[in-house]
Amino acid sequence: MSTTAKSETQLQNCARILVKCPDRPGIVAVLSSFLHKHDANIIESSQYSSDPENGTFFIRIEYHCEQLVRKRDEMEREFASIAAEHQMEYSFHYRAIRQRAAIYVSKETHCLMELLWEWQNGDLEMDIAVVISNAEAARPIVESLGIPFYYIPANKDIREQVEQQQIRLMEEYKVDILILARYMQILTPNFVSHFENRIINIHHSFLPAFIGADPYTRAFNRGVKLIGATSHYVTNDLDEGPIIEQDVERVDHRADVQTLKKIGRKIERRVLANAVKWHLENRIIVEENKTIVFH
Amino acid sequence: MSTTAKSETQLQNCARILVKCPDRPGIVAVLSSFLHKHDANIIESSQYSSDPENGTFFIRIEYHCEQLVRKRDEMEREFASIAAEHQMEYSFHYRAIRQRAAIYVSKETHCLMELLWEWQNGDLEMDIAVVISNAEAARPIVESLGIPFYYIPANKDIREQVEQQQIRLMEEYKVDILILARYMQILTPNFVSHFENRIINIHHSFLPAFIGADPYTRAFNRGVKLIGATSHYVTNDLDEGPIIEQDVERVDHRADVQTLKKIGRKIERRVLANAVKWHLENRIIVEENKTIVFH
Amino acid sequence: MSTTAKSETQLQNCARILVKCPDRPGIVAVLSSFLHKHDANIIESSQYSSDPENGTFFIRIEYHCEQLVRKRDEMEREFASIAAEHQMEYSFHYRAIRQRAAIYVSKETHCLMELLWEWQNGDLEMDIAVVISNAEAARPIVESLGIPFYYIPANKDIREQVEQQQIRLMEEYKVDILILARYMQILTPNFVSHFENRIINIHHSFLPAFIGADPYTRAFNRGVKLIGATSHYVTNDLDEGPIIEQDVERVDHRADVQTLKKIGRKIERRVLANAVKWHLENRIIVEENKTIVFH
Amino acid sequence: MSTTAKSETQLQNCARILVKCPDRPGIVAVLSSFLHKHDANIIESSQYSSDPENGTFFIRIEYHCEQLVRKRDEMEREFASIAAEHQMEYSFHYRAIRQRAAIYVSKETHCLMELLWEWQNGDLEMDIAVVISNAEAARPIVESLGIPFYYIPANKDIREQVEQQQIRLMEEYKVDILILARYMQILTPNFVSHFENRIINIHHSFLPAFIGADPYTRAFNRGVKLIGATSHYVTNDLDEGPIIEQDVERVDHRADVQTLKKIGRKIERRVLANAVKWHLENRIIVEENKTIVFH
Repeated sequence: MSTTAKSETQLQNCARILVKCPDRPGIVAVLSSFLHKHDANIIESSQYSSDPENGTFFIRIEYHCEQLVRKRDEMEREFASIAAEHQMEYSFHYRAIRQRAAIYVSKETHCLMELLWEWQNGDLEMDIAVVISNAEAARPIVESLGIPFYYIPANKDIREQVEQQQIRLMEEYKVDILILARYMQILTPNFVSHFENRIINIHHSFLPAFIGADPYTRAFNRGVKLIGATSHYVTNDLDEGPIIEQDVERVDHRADVQTLKKIGRKIERRVLANAVKWHLENRIIVEENKTIVFH
Repeated sequence: MSTTAKSETQLQNCARILVKCPDRPGIVAVLSSFLHKHDANIIESSQYSSDPENGTFFIRIEYHCEQLVRKRDEMEREFASIAAEHQMEYSFHYRAIRQRAAIYVSKETHCLMELLWEWQNGDLEMDIAVVISNAEAARPIVESLGIPFYYIPANKDIREQVEQQQIRLMEEYKVDILILARYMQILTPNFVSHFENRIINIHHSFLPAFIGADPYTRAFNRGVKLIGATSHYVTNDLDEGPIIEQDVERVDHRADVQTLKKIGRKIERRVLANAVKWHLENRIIVEENKTIVFH
Repeated sequence: MSTTAKSETQLQNCARILVKCPDRPGIVAVLSSFLHKHDANIIESSQYSSDPENGTFFIRIEYHCEQLVRKRDEMEREFASIAAEHQMEYSFHYRAIRQRAAIYVSKETHCLMELLWEWQNGDLEMDIAVVISNAEAARPIVESLGIPFYYIPANKDIREQVEQQQIRLMEEYKVDILILARYMQILTPNFVSHFENRIINIHHSFLPAFIGADPYTRAFNRGVKLIGATSHYVTNDLDEGPIIEQDVERVDHRADVQTLKKIGRKIERRVLANAVKWHLENRIIVEENKTIVFH
Repeated sequence: MSTTAKSETQLQNCARILVKCPDRPGIVAVLSSFLHKHDANIIESSQYSSDPENGTFFIRIEYHCEQLVRKRDEMEREFASIAAEHQMEYSFHYRAIRQRAAIYVSKETHCLMELLWEWQNGDLEMDIAVVISNAEAARPIVESLGIPFYYIPANKDIREQVEQQQIRLMEEYKVDILILARYMQILTPNFVSHFENRIINIHHSFLPAFIGADPYTRAFNRGVKLIGATSHYVTNDLDEGPIIEQDVERVDHRADVQTLKKIGRKIERRVLANAVKWHLENRIIVEENKTIVFH
């Protein structure tokens, strides 16, 4: 059997379970015994408790299990009663089932390019189902990779009808995750509610500094010595959603707004790519407008 | 002659000139010809123009000149007419004349400790004239180094009378620069106006995020992935003065407020120490609520 | 009960277990069931497998257990048979039992100062049993904190007799961990063998670059653009022991050797302090001349 | 006149002069007076002295001068006698004359992709004259941008004949700078001597650690906690040429060799792109196997 084929089979047998429940002794024992009973081997495990006394407990377990495809329905059924007993919220995620992404982009394509690059390298566990843009700039590169590209002009006057078209496309393409790769359009509460904790945005500032429009100009005017970017889940409060990842670069008085934008593009690229990667690997749990990220 | 003595003589012969003027061709030629005429050798030179066309020009030149003590009055007199001709604002700074600092501190002494440490290492070109605190915590270490220490209780009810006492002390000790090393008291416009661009504060956030009180708690609540500190000159707009230096550290969901404060202390220490160092080396020019920092 | 007292009691009930064993399904279930049976709550858990198939499995579990002092002997007895069954190497560590440290220092005291600072802040879980130096520079600060200080001149001609004296002191002071805070003396294999994986050194370069003497001069001559420091366990191969932590700072062509040393001191301080902290928190497992560090 | 056209004219009038000479008072005055006499405005100026007493002085001046195309021959003639008088080595560089680059690449295309990206953004002042590769992987993207692509198989047995073909191509395409973007072939002294200080390589380690082949495997085996990349000019001593830029990323025990390579690619991309950018902007002076980089 070739290495690749073997590796594909291994992926078929890999899964993750995310659990959230009241913190009390024995939770790890319950979970690990359940997995052991089904001959699953724990590959990676990360946990967090909001408070050792009466807090909430979160855990992500990645496991490997021979014949997983055959066994998983039974495992899920059995787990349902365990979960009920311990008041667990939980979800299973199978590596064999790749998430389907829609990437939204404007004429600024640097974040899209980075995502395509990482995706081609095999670093992003997703299929790119569709790219949607209010500009034509990205069409050639997107279509050259065989990915459907839709040009949908957007502005605030036609927002609702545009969003209805987009929602239909998301359904048609069975999209799991929406990535706003510098899309630069505000979304309505209706749209956001369709995709709770599944829309990832990149904001071009170190939030909560410079919420809203034109952050680089405002950073320039304030004379900051570091500029940043923030990737977060989109909620109905502009730039107030749960932060997934942030990073910064050093700048000095010589940097004008154009230079800040150039430097900023490098930060935006890597911050968004990291956030998407962790989302796809089911490393993120959203809790009370904050994220737990199990690196 | 011993190395140290020689080095002291060399310092006697070192100076810096800061110039701000309308940008037009020939400024560097004027300045360098002036220095050359007086047999001064340029050691370091840094310049910045806000705009090549009709902008403002800034330059910092560090020079070495034999017999500087004897020659400097004459040089300054001669330069006055050059400056008038080219509409220059300028200042001369002699390394032989060390700035005198007052350090203001509360019961949180980590920034003070770092400054004392750097100062003992010879990395800060200043004399510490006096330490002022609204707590007794720092007294032993300060007095053990032979530095006068004043305990002056402070709160918002007695602010004005406290500040009058402090202003008198600043005059008595001939203080050039005030360093607020986590002093945590708001200053009145009257106090600030006595020391324009000479009060350096450390704010425990990455400004303009989390202006005002309790930034670590607010950073925790927002779920940021980096925390920071900002050193700035104090103006009458709280936390809005010209930023000198900023830095950040990475944190994650496991960090509670106490942990953020601990990590923050390390950032505060180094950010304040850098800002003070650059101020003392005359590397900073304040222009329209921003700083030019010639590294 | 006061907060502090309560917190002390909590510490009494906190422990960590480190386990290394052949990787096979069910290990986590065995460990977590054992802890659950004794009403211990898992606070933090980190694991690593060198290879999912036939690799070695490592886990660090931090747990809280009421009445731990009363129960721990029984728990350890019971665990011994579990361990035997699964071929586990393991160790229990109780937070109530603080490790006793000896700090070795030369006339360069910056790393010692940082350790004292962190220790006074409560960030290092250790008692400083004794400080040993081949210079008198650190005596005043060490003795002012009530810590015994021994001046023991050292050089390569008297190495063995000096080490015999030091070994006696380590025994007299019941020392668990030796911290070489820029001690700058080579240790003999005999000395090292007394304290396997318990001597932590700070080397003033980014190893494996610039092994041996005078790394800053060699970094200067090579024209590197970053300088670093490395903390590692001491073995008999000079600067070849398991690396615990490394960090770097950016430098440029203007930095002479003195400047590199100054910048380097800041890196050394934080790198050594981090390494010591993680060692004390039992976060480090040494495996085949490398470290697993459970952050 | 359109903005772009105007901007093109401005570039026509921009130039840089690099000077190296014995350090003595008056050099800056000579240079700035020369420029002022020709109505040139200094836009940026950076200088460095290896030693204030009897050292070597280096300066880079960027200037703007109306009608530069018409005036530059006369200026250069006049400057020749000034240079002779002050023992200056110097070079003029005109922004209107873009450097012509050849990029050498293997089947690993990530560094090439980053260069193409920066180049398309207008961040690299060069024309890409030709891409040469010992693999076909890069052909589609290179040719889609209208850049000539040559597939030249290379290995150590046919090194000399391959290099002769390459030298002919460099001449045919009038190449100024050779960029080895992970080319992974050793060059002969004959080849190197044709392009002194004009071949920029990216080495996939933090030099001088891990000189030579397979640095990521060796970094893995040593258990380093940071991995790096180094861009340097190529000399006849393998990986010993003057370092231009270095950077690192943090890794931990979980990273296997494949993961190190993935992380490393991100470092390599940005380190090489920075080095090339600074070379093209004439910011680098090589002096005794080290670089002065005027940022």
